[in-house]
Amino acid sequence: MPSRRLSLLLSLSALLFPGLGHSAPLLGFDAQGTEAQLALEARFKAALDGKDQDRWMQRLTAQPHHVGSAAGAEYAAWMKAQFEAWGYDAEIVRYDVSVPVPTVRKLTLTAPERFEARLEEAPLAEDPSTVAPEGLLPPYHAFSAAGDVEAELVFVNYGLKDDYEALARRGIDVEGKIVLAKYGRSWRGIKPKLAAEHGAIGALIYSDPADDGYGQGDTYPAGPYKHETGVQRGSVMDLPLRPGDILTPYAGAREGTPRLALEEVETLTPIPVLPISYADATPLLKALGGEVAPKDWFGQLPFAYHIGPGPAQVRLTLAFRYETVPAYNVLARLPGARQPDQWILRGNHHDGWNHGAADPISGLVALLAEAKALGELAAAGYRLDRTVMYAAWDAEEPGLIGSTEWVEDHAAELRAHLVAYLNTDGNSRGFVNIGGSHSLQRLMNEVAEVTLDPLLNVPVDQRLRAKLRLSKDGEDRQLAGQPELPIEPLGSGSDYSPFLQHLGIASLNTSFGGEGPSGSYHTLYDTYAHYTRFRDPELRYGVALAELNGRATLRLAQAPLLPFEFEGVADAVDRFLNDLEGAAEKQRAAQQTRAARLKDGSYALALDPLAAIAPPTPERPVPYFNFAPLRNAQADLAAAAKRYGELTTEPESLPESLRATLDRRLAQAEAQLTAEDGLPRRPWFRHFLYAPGFYTGYGVKTLPAVREAIEEAQYEQVEGEVARTTARLRALVDHIEGMNALLEAPR
Amino acid sequence: MPSRRLSLLLSLSALLFPGLGHSAPLLGFDAQGTEAQLALEARFKAALDGKDQDRWMQRLTAQPHHVGSAAGAEYAAWMKAQFEAWGYDAEIVRYDVSVPVPTVRKLTLTAPERFEARLEEAPLAEDPSTVAPEGLLPPYHAFSAAGDVEAELVFVNYGLKDDYEALARRGIDVEGKIVLAKYGRSWRGIKPKLAAEHGAIGALIYSDPADDGYGQGDTYPAGPYKHETGVQRGSVMDLPLRPGDILTPYAGAREGTPRLALEEVETLTPIPVLPISYADATPLLKALGGEVAPKDWFGQLPFAYHIGPGPAQVRLTLAFRYETVPAYNVLARLPGARQPDQWILRGNHHDGWNHGAADPISGLVALLAEAKALGELAAAGYRLDRTVMYAAWDAEEPGLIGSTEWVEDHAAELRAHLVAYLNTDGNSRGFVNIGGSHSLQRLMNEVAEVTLDPLLNVPVDQRLRAKLRLSKDGEDRQLAGQPELPIEPLGSGSDYSPFLQHLGIASLNTSFGGEGPSGSYHTLYDTYAHYTRFRDPELRYGVALAELNGRATLRLAQAPLLPFEFEGVADAVDRFLNDLEGAAEKQRAAQQTRAARLKDGSYALALDPLAAIAPPTPERPVPYFNFAPLRNAQADLAAAAKRYGELTTEPESLPESLRATLDRRLAQAEAQLTAEDGLPRRPWFRHFLYAPGFYTGYGVKTLPAVREAIEEAQYEQVEGEVARTTARLRALVDHIEGMNALLEAPR
Repeated sequence: MPSRRLSLLLSLSALLFPGLGHSAPLLGFDAQGTEAQLALEARFKAALDGKDQDRWMQRLTAQPHHVGSAAGAEYAAWMKAQFEAWGYDAEIVRYDVSVPVPTVRKLTLTAPERFEARLEEAPLAEDPSTVAPEGLLPPYHAFSAAGDVEAELVFVNYGLKDDYEALARRGIDVEGKIVLAKYGRSWRGIKPKLAAEHGAIGALIYSDPADDGYGQGDTYPAGPYKHETGVQRGSVMDLPLRPGDILTPYAGAREGTPRLALEEVETLTPIPVLPISYADATPLLKALGGEVAPKDWFGQLPFAYHIGPGPAQVRLTLAFRYETVPAYNVLARLPGARQPDQWILRGNHHDGWNHGAADPISGLVALLAEAKALGELAAAGYRLDRTVMYAAWDAEEPGLIGSTEWVEDHAAELRAHLVAYLNTDGNSRGFVNIGGSHSLQRLMNEVAEVTLDPLLNVPVDQRLRAKLRLSKDGEDRQLAGQPELPIEPLGSGSDYSPFLQHLGIASLNTSFGGEGPSGSYHTLYDTYAHYTRFRDPELRYGVALAELNGRATLRLAQAPLLPFEFEGVADAVDRFLNDLEGAAEKQRAAQQTRAARLKDGSYALALDPLAAIAPPTPERPVPYFNFAPLRNAQADLAAAAKRYGELTTEPESLPESLRATLDRRLAQAEAQLTAEDGLPRRPWFRHFLYAPGFYTGYGVKTLPAVREAIEEAQYEQVEGEVARTTARLRALVDHIEGMNALLEAPR
Repeated sequence: MPSRRLSLLLSLSALLFPGLGHSAPLLGFDAQGTEAQLALEARFKAALDGKDQDRWMQRLTAQPHHVGSAAGAEYAAWMKAQFEAWGYDAEIVRYDVSVPVPTVRKLTLTAPERFEARLEEAPLAEDPSTVAPEGLLPPYHAFSAAGDVEAELVFVNYGLKDDYEALARRGIDVEGKIVLAKYGRSWRGIKPKLAAEHGAIGALIYSDPADDGYGQGDTYPAGPYKHETGVQRGSVMDLPLRPGDILTPYAGAREGTPRLALEEVETLTPIPVLPISYADATPLLKALGGEVAPKDWFGQLPFAYHIGPGPAQVRLTLAFRYETVPAYNVLARLPGARQPDQWILRGNHHDGWNHGAADPISGLVALLAEAKALGELAAAGYRLDRTVMYAAWDAEEPGLIGSTEWVEDHAAELRAHLVAYLNTDGNSRGFVNIGGSHSLQRLMNEVAEVTLDPLLNVPVDQRLRAKLRLSKDGEDRQLAGQPELPIEPLGSGSDYSPFLQHLGIASLNTSFGGEGPSGSYHTLYDTYAHYTRFRDPELRYGVALAELNGRATLRLAQAPLLPFEFEGVADAVDRFLNDLEGAAEKQRAAQQTRAARLKDGSYALALDPLAAIAPPTPERPVPYFNFAPLRNAQADLAAAAKRYGELTTEPESLPESLRATLDRRLAQAEAQLTAEDGLPRRPWFRHFLYAPGFYTGYGVKTLPAVREAIEEAQYEQVEGEVARTTARLRALVDHIEGMNALLEAPR
């Protein structure tokens, strides 16, 4: 850091954050309780130690430790012992889950010349972890179909809907072909799903150097970006349909739980699909003929990208052995003194595709640091009011399996007792990312106001606000100036999904990032050396992550009244509705413009007469929709939320029994937004505010039932989904009004 | 073309363009005259022949033919003979001009390893023109400084103002260094000019494959884009200051004209600069260390781009011999029958950097085709009313020298007699491009309405309107729906510059393009084979270009009243003012935002604390400007223009003597927009509506005196330049009102 900047910063800090304390009472506390709480948090923070995290990361990344591996079992046992040593009741909860083990992986370019893909990642002398690691899973896609297919190759860009439309305009069909898609712009599982829907018989996915290789910066080991042989492994289970053990949907995969036959499983990818490196993709892309791809399809390889089909022809052979393996979830519990039946759960998975330094160990060691510090506080006599639990999940990588099985297994208990779930996963260096239930938005804003950036020593929310002020997006969305920073709605991709979207438990997912970039995700190169050189040297942001989640956990555990509030929810719904109406309007305008341009002949006149490209096909006209029921429900939600806030400004003065009643109801609030019969096409997902996109994967769709009906031009379904979504909002309004009535009742 | 599209098009044509004739009278004609004129144009069109153009292109691209070459002299003599054969008075007007001949070109990477740049373009067996062509000029920059410099290398992206600001924020200075810049985003001469202003002692410019190589499509000979050894030669004379022979500013370089000493020349580039291929640039870029460049600086080479400085060190040695060589302008004349003293001039240069198929022969053969067809009409008894002249300029490439010397030599005559100058240069395939004086906008719209696209058989303006309807830019600027398509204002880069911007002669510059792309510009690969394979097979758009310019020439030659009008000028000034005010507002808002973000510490908080990057430096606050004088002048111009239009709806009914008077005044109208003392810093450029950008080169700046004062933060000069520009608009208003008074006078 240039010294001029450092001194500037120090003077700015003094200017901008004189006290760095919190003057107003914290949510859920009165003024006095606030002081005591902040003192407790200060003790907690003082007990955090980056060296612990560094040591643990070395230990937990020493070997590949995917579900079913010996290392994974050993790590779970070690963690259980640690929790016990720190004073926790700890247990290992085992599920027997079904996962594929790749037995044959073969990819050959058979024409116009022969090339055998290497399908392996190069060991690097600079990083000992990469040299002959024992028990390493090779690059593959878990839950791909097996098969032996040979066909002409077609390059399909990122393999998304628009890409297939562009191909269709060029008269190119992937029916019976094998597609080659770039990683990126969607969750990986979407690519073979769409390819199969278009008739492809196989799919390859490679990481273009433009996206996370030398097109971004120096490659490993010189820099953090993807080595030419690096391959992103990963699951292609149909997660937007349902995560978890493929043979035991909706039930914990215990001994004796009835299993589906493999043929009955709905969540397997229907065609063979394999991830490859750009070293392996290069000869394939070079062998493609046919038209030159549209320029925005080009990556960073040093030649013009062609679409094909052919003359490149490839043979892809994949076989898997399905094995039932033990998944070891580690659960640790510190029982609450005052309200032991109200549980706060903090979780992070422990299985990795390989060494998994960033994913998931960087988040896991922060969780362990929190648990250790809380254990020390408890040992020093600070017993917490509510029960705090820690979970280290197994089998997240193949499909959120460990957490999902546990949630499905304990659904009733969790619905009764679990107040909130705080998830982390991979961490890095930079700005705070907070996603989750908007009833926790204010809590997390208050936490971010006192959690300091470890390098700049300013509150992490101030760094984020500064970034938003400098970004066009922040300015456009007017986020930078808001009194509360909106937290991000959650899609999927980590273990919060079963809690939030299946059970309706208020959930959070947090990390730091944006300044510790990498192309190591799910490759052999996600190692301790890589992480500590490029992503978070000395794990200083690991400590910040522990501080952030520890403070949130402590407030949830200690607040006299649970620190939920609903104005953040009402604001979020308002934003989602604005966004939804804007998207519908944009879709309508685009359809109208396209129709007009088709009718007036613009395409026919403007397209290159020597290029084989047709005008786009017309779309269905987009009708006007009645969003008024949602708008009215949102208005009532805003009013009820405001009233609830007014009635709970001094929670400590409320009678204890009323607080206990309110706490129970607050813990049930998120569930009001869920419906037992779930979202269209995918009943496992029950939340009507947030879901992963059916055709985007991890990325969130807010108001998903309505939004996806519109996006997919199922316009006749919109009214019904508006009604179902409105019913969920109304249920929350009623729920809050019920609490307000209790608060307003004479006492 | 897919047959489905063809049939769709045919039915659309029938629907949209039933008559394809022009029902309203043409500008400058009455109804009857219109009919006769269109009949004449139809005869002209029938005489055009693509096979002629193809044959001539083969002949005129057989050898490299730069100024001073034997081939150039022979081509000039052949063209003179052709013109004479077609019935013209033809002459060769010779100037003796000073040009550099490169004698030493050497570029060596001297550290960290040694690499000798090849500095030559590879011959390709697939294109015989490229194999051992005699008399080929090697890749170099004409009017670079000579020198022998060695220094660390710094990569400066495109080498523009923003790039140096980005370097400064990273603490990187090019003082005493050699810069490596990418071609593109500005005229080439701007890059060494800015580098020198920042203290660099040498400059290299290379074409990144992202911009016109494999990042755009297949490379030559497989496709049209730049071969890895291809180098864009070109002039780096300070053209935005003044074009033409460097030793004889403002005067024709005849025998006996006083010459400057070389030391007195202001238009040489002050540091040595050399263009190189990406094959030669690759080892240099790879050898650069230091920080990774910002991602948007990356090109398409297969590695992460670093900035340096060093460890790459290069030695650049350049020497030139200045020679005085003959520049042969070919001038041909068909004297007018009715108004021989009113001249219409059509021009295109004939010198090329090499074989020059696209640049300039593709435009030149269209000009020759026009001349031949007009000669045939004349021979058949169709004598034109005004004098039509054709020019084939020499020495355009080193700095518009042939045309500039002729213009400077004949300034008084041209001011007295030249009505309009119609320029072409390189042509290609696709959409019509029309740039020029807005007093000719309606004429060119009317011409474009009846000139047919040779592949789609629809009027070329309809294709352009269709493209605008489909483009966001067209929609945003509301161009697609306008009754008249705005023509583009002209910057520089071809021979219209001395006519338009030095003398104030109404000028045009036209071409087709957008569907025949290429990376061959100024390389060895700009050959007949390349052009006819990739750019305009069978030269069908060459015929369209001849039709377009032939019709315009015939209307200018035949209209009973010269086809000028001024509502197009008033509209253009209105657009320029809107644009100027918008740009000033944007500059003001950006300055204010930056100042606010500097003050509130956003940069200090949001910048990566581990990256050596400083906040930007504050800028001068942008005051509010008084544009009212310009706005008032524009309003008066609009009123005068409207009145002129109303008074000239039936030109043929005006007395012949009045028409003759008006014609003389119309020919002087453009000159009202010029001032004898010219633009700030560059008096040779006298036009106050259009100029090449002082810091962008070819790209146009409208209302340049005011605009550049604002852009360059010379805010105290704005008021004065507003006054000077207003005076030019007022002069035009008075000029038109003078004509209106004549038209309104009782007769």
